[in-house]
Amino acid sequence: MREIRQHGPYHYVFSRYVEPVAHVKPGETVAIYTDDAFESQITQGSDRPSQILGAYLNPQTGPIYVEGAEPGDTLVVRIVDSEPTRDWAVSVFVPYFGGLTATKLTRTLHDPLPEKVWLYQLRDGWLEHNERLRFPWRPFMGTVGTAPELEALSALTPFDHGGNMDVPDVKPGNTVYLPVRVPGALFFTGDCHAGQGQGELCGVALEITAKVTMTFDLIKQKPIAWPRIESPEELMVVGSARPMEDAARIAYAELVGWLTELGWDRWEAYEALTQIGDLYVGNMVDTYYSLVAKIRKEYALVGHRAESSLKATESTTG
Amino acid sequence: MREIRQHGPYHYVFSRYVEPVAHVKPGETVAIYTDDAFESQITQGSDRPSQILGAYLNPQTGPIYVEGAEPGDTLVVRIVDSEPTRDWAVSVFVPYFGGLTATKLTRTLHDPLPEKVWLYQLRDGWLEHNERLRFPWRPFMGTVGTAPELEALSALTPFDHGGNMDVPDVKPGNTVYLPVRVPGALFFTGDCHAGQGQGELCGVALEITAKVTMTFDLIKQKPIAWPRIESPEELMVVGSARPMEDAARIAYAELVGWLTELGWDRWEAYEALTQIGDLYVGNMVDTYYSLVAKIRKEYALVGHRAESSLKATESTTG
Amino acid sequence: MREIRQHGPYHYVFSRYVEPVAHVKPGETVAIYTDDAFESQITQGSDRPSQILGAYLNPQTGPIYVEGAEPGDTLVVRIVDSEPTRDWAVSVFVPYFGGLTATKLTRTLHDPLPEKVWLYQLRDGWLEHNERLRFPWRPFMGTVGTAPELEALSALTPFDHGGNMDVPDVKPGNTVYLPVRVPGALFFTGDCHAGQGQGELCGVALEITAKVTMTFDLIKQKPIAWPRIESPEELMVVGSARPMEDAARIAYAELVGWLTELGWDRWEAYEALTQIGDLYVGNMVDTYYSLVAKIRKEYALVGHRAESSLKATESTTG
Amino acid sequence: MREIRQHGPYHYVFSRYVEPVAHVKPGETVAIYTDDAFESQITQGSDRPSQILGAYLNPQTGPIYVEGAEPGDTLVVRIVDSEPTRDWAVSVFVPYFGGLTATKLTRTLHDPLPEKVWLYQLRDGWLEHNERLRFPWRPFMGTVGTAPELEALSALTPFDHGGNMDVPDVKPGNTVYLPVRVPGALFFTGDCHAGQGQGELCGVALEITAKVTMTFDLIKQKPIAWPRIESPEELMVVGSARPMEDAARIAYAELVGWLTELGWDRWEAYEALTQIGDLYVGNMVDTYYSLVAKIRKEYALVGHRAESSLKATESTTG
Repeated sequence: MREIRQHGPYHYVFSRYVEPVAHVKPGETVAIYTDDAFESQITQGSDRPSQILGAYLNPQTGPIYVEGAEPGDTLVVRIVDSEPTRDWAVSVFVPYFGGLTATKLTRTLHDPLPEKVWLYQLRDGWLEHNERLRFPWRPFMGTVGTAPELEALSALTPFDHGGNMDVPDVKPGNTVYLPVRVPGALFFTGDCHAGQGQGELCGVALEITAKVTMTFDLIKQKPIAWPRIESPEELMVVGSARPMEDAARIAYAELVGWLTELGWDRWEAYEALTQIGDLYVGNMVDTYYSLVAKIRKEYALVGHRAESSLKATESTTG
Repeated sequence: MREIRQHGPYHYVFSRYVEPVAHVKPGETVAIYTDDAFESQITQGSDRPSQILGAYLNPQTGPIYVEGAEPGDTLVVRIVDSEPTRDWAVSVFVPYFGGLTATKLTRTLHDPLPEKVWLYQLRDGWLEHNERLRFPWRPFMGTVGTAPELEALSALTPFDHGGNMDVPDVKPGNTVYLPVRVPGALFFTGDCHAGQGQGELCGVALEITAKVTMTFDLIKQKPIAWPRIESPEELMVVGSARPMEDAARIAYAELVGWLTELGWDRWEAYEALTQIGDLYVGNMVDTYYSLVAKIRKEYALVGHRAESSLKATESTTG
Repeated sequence: MREIRQHGPYHYVFSRYVEPVAHVKPGETVAIYTDDAFESQITQGSDRPSQILGAYLNPQTGPIYVEGAEPGDTLVVRIVDSEPTRDWAVSVFVPYFGGLTATKLTRTLHDPLPEKVWLYQLRDGWLEHNERLRFPWRPFMGTVGTAPELEALSALTPFDHGGNMDVPDVKPGNTVYLPVRVPGALFFTGDCHAGQGQGELCGVALEITAKVTMTFDLIKQKPIAWPRIESPEELMVVGSARPMEDAARIAYAELVGWLTELGWDRWEAYEALTQIGDLYVGNMVDTYYSLVAKIRKEYALVGHRAESSLKATESTTG
Repeated sequence: MREIRQHGPYHYVFSRYVEPVAHVKPGETVAIYTDDAFESQITQGSDRPSQILGAYLNPQTGPIYVEGAEPGDTLVVRIVDSEPTRDWAVSVFVPYFGGLTATKLTRTLHDPLPEKVWLYQLRDGWLEHNERLRFPWRPFMGTVGTAPELEALSALTPFDHGGNMDVPDVKPGNTVYLPVRVPGALFFTGDCHAGQGQGELCGVALEITAKVTMTFDLIKQKPIAWPRIESPEELMVVGSARPMEDAARIAYAELVGWLTELGWDRWEAYEALTQIGDLYVGNMVDTYYSLVAKIRKEYALVGHRAESSLKATESTTG
């Protein structure tokens, strides 16, 4: 299997204005090496994030050019596996960043909360800082996305191209659907999390370097407006916006749309999601908040629609 | 077991300015009869909600006076069981009410979405409208709460007294902790849902009349600021506010506080919830949105803290 | 002229569940005495608000029963004059209250900002704390409103009944229109501000006791949904909600509605307000934020519509 | 005076990834030609914006490279004059765009509001569509800004670099201060408005092509975080964010900061802005809302501080 490493500097924006580091074919599976969100600069409990970190955060590997991808297609990214490439993870309290602090966008006159570095040892499937801070290995990619049509968006931002969604369902075994807005899609990924709670409360998960295995595919001439995720049991849409209710509306409105693509009447879809949908917070800390709306396939794919669903979401250029 | 029915009219506000319909003792278990959110006025698919419904919505049974309850105590409500008292449920699209429509608070110049009434037959543990709209019986109480100190708050509003939280974890097997702000606590409940998705997207769940069995208890001289829920496996806090991120902040900040009551250092608690907390949307439709932050007890009650937790949350006047 | 003083305790909620302190007739002008927002408990620079103040804040004089007022009418309140009844005002930094601090609704883990008391001497039309903190006498009523139909709302809350809007245009020379939701309207007022900036940034204006002169009138069978203000030059609507954009939408949507009552086509009204409307923040600190949308009469009342406007807004029971 | 026209295509992002169209020296005054927000594609009342307009909106003239500008400096832009280069302006109702409609970020299931094109004739200092839609010539630049350090941000977005703020105080006679984040500052401008109300309610002001005269200058080694505006009478800061209260907090927090640069104690500044500040909505329609906090110089520059203020804000490289 081909391995993709960043040759030259990482990228800190999702952008069409840079050269691809690799080309992949639809159907191809590759292993991608990613650095952690701090580019491995924070390694000790005594490190001071405010002195070490600057504007260049959340380094991305990419862009990866997907052969044949054109605007209006959907990029299919199956996450096959995620392996750690070191035996520790790090979480950090960064001044004026996080869910229970004043921030650069939610401004106050408070002094910052204390800085802290939390180092975790990875052993036997658990990440351990001490007896209380001990959590299982539940890896996922905090950041996956394609290049926007015009903008170059910060690697800290999630939006309709994907980006820094920090959604735990972007994990091995699941498939992410992303809009293609430029030729070749220009896929980037990074920010592997060894685990994270919903909301990513302090703003920094269990950050780790990783080797992630992904299979790329295309659904031709099938535009989607926002990222979708499919697990063996569920259909999901990620909405990213502020305030948080706007993210919730996007996620559920797009999921209504997905159900209508599967043959549902839109009002029945609205009613069904009312009674059986799920809605959780991926992150409440980034420049946009990310919410995930979902429905189990046993409800979404009732009767004959199950098949048409597969057709709609899985037919490829292959 | 004693049964409590509303004698005289239901109440449409959580208020101290009304007379109790019953008194209960700490430790007592009672059965409470509740009407549905429309006071059983919508019974046919051809009904027009905009013509039938007025300002008097979400009728509450209560208030129930809990003997010995004084401001500064916590009211403990164990939900033992919830039985339907009819064999059908109803959901409704109400003009300018819901998650994917302009509303009275999120105003636009759009005409309203179509009105609709969805009737469901309850049979063999399932609620069925048609083959696609068919969901399992998962009952919970949409509305539980105590009287505020000064205000009389609409039964449609969730806030720090509980109220119309529409949180599916307020269900049989779980315990709800509510602040006591007036003598006797003055507990109200209503709005049984035969089932509901997270977010309650269209604004109306599977509404049903019910007989709910609850055990009341008190934790004396233990004030809490916001409602808490305890399941066999989890500790939860419900925050209700707008915008939605304010509800999320309240829920997680209060859960940090609960962990510190259990012996945690607050920064370790902030870090732990970042990595292992959960955060879902109860409702995205009411006057305030309700979000639920939670942590599994296996993480919250590590080692010796498990016992002190039980002491802190379960000691009663008994 | 009749004078109305609060006999017995002030009220801290806008509520129909209390007895009137006075009755007025449509067309009658009365003088009303109001206490300051802290009920005159803060009098020295060394006072500690966190120790002095409890839940009983923003005392209201009222309710005043307006003869003949019935639900569906509009109450007309002309503010004739506002005179100070002492020669000093006070502003305060209250912990976890204000626009540039974490609050009870926007929760964080920050310690509170410092408490401070700012005393101002009123002399020669100026309020002076020191040479930098010296502002002109620009009095207005922070709180005016009617009783809600069902709820009893905190005197700290602005909403569709008026309440604690903290809008500087509620001032002598202007007329406030309020919805009548209960028999007699049940009008309350308080919270005179000797002056305040837009947004009321720290949460506390130049608080003063006052004698305010108001003329009451009625527009029969003319329901309005939100408070309106008319100055000699402008038409205004106040929207109060969270997040702030919801308050802005309410204010402008209601102003579109007012223009259509004056004969405008709604799309022309939408276009006109785009080009010539004004929109400022009354308060960014209360339980709901209050925004004021306005249009100058020279644009609103073009040609013959000027007259019909007066008819629509000023015809009374007289 | 030198004239700057866009040679080659306009730009639709604020970006460092493009070549300058012109270089200016500090102290230099130039005339810049700008197209309207629709690149002059909408010219008739019967035009259908949804068919004519694509993703390439709000064309910007630039970037203009300011000699000597380096990251950490402040760019000073004095707006000398703004002349129309045609005798008509246009406003448009664009589907799912505006303040009183569902949008791409505030999603619902509503059908779009009707499309409309409003053409205005410019004559004798007035823009006239019909007798009701007739407004004075009050020109300002809807969009001014510098290139971000890393991102390429849509010309429809206002943020900390300036951009599409749609703030009527960016007008002849006033000075705008912008952060320099890249060498040469890379200034862009466009989107001249022949007039606009606060909030820009329908999302589209009186759009016109223009020749705008600006003088550029630098304050060396003086970083600012957000755009500032100085009029002959006032100091202002523009905050752009969602929800709207975050924009308000930014604007006022930065204005507190500006006052402390002028010698104020921060708590006195917080108190002064509470009593005498102003806060209005520039736009409630763009990807971020823009709010303007301001204080009159007679209050900001009390006594000897007036001089130090001029030093702090007006010393240049000259």
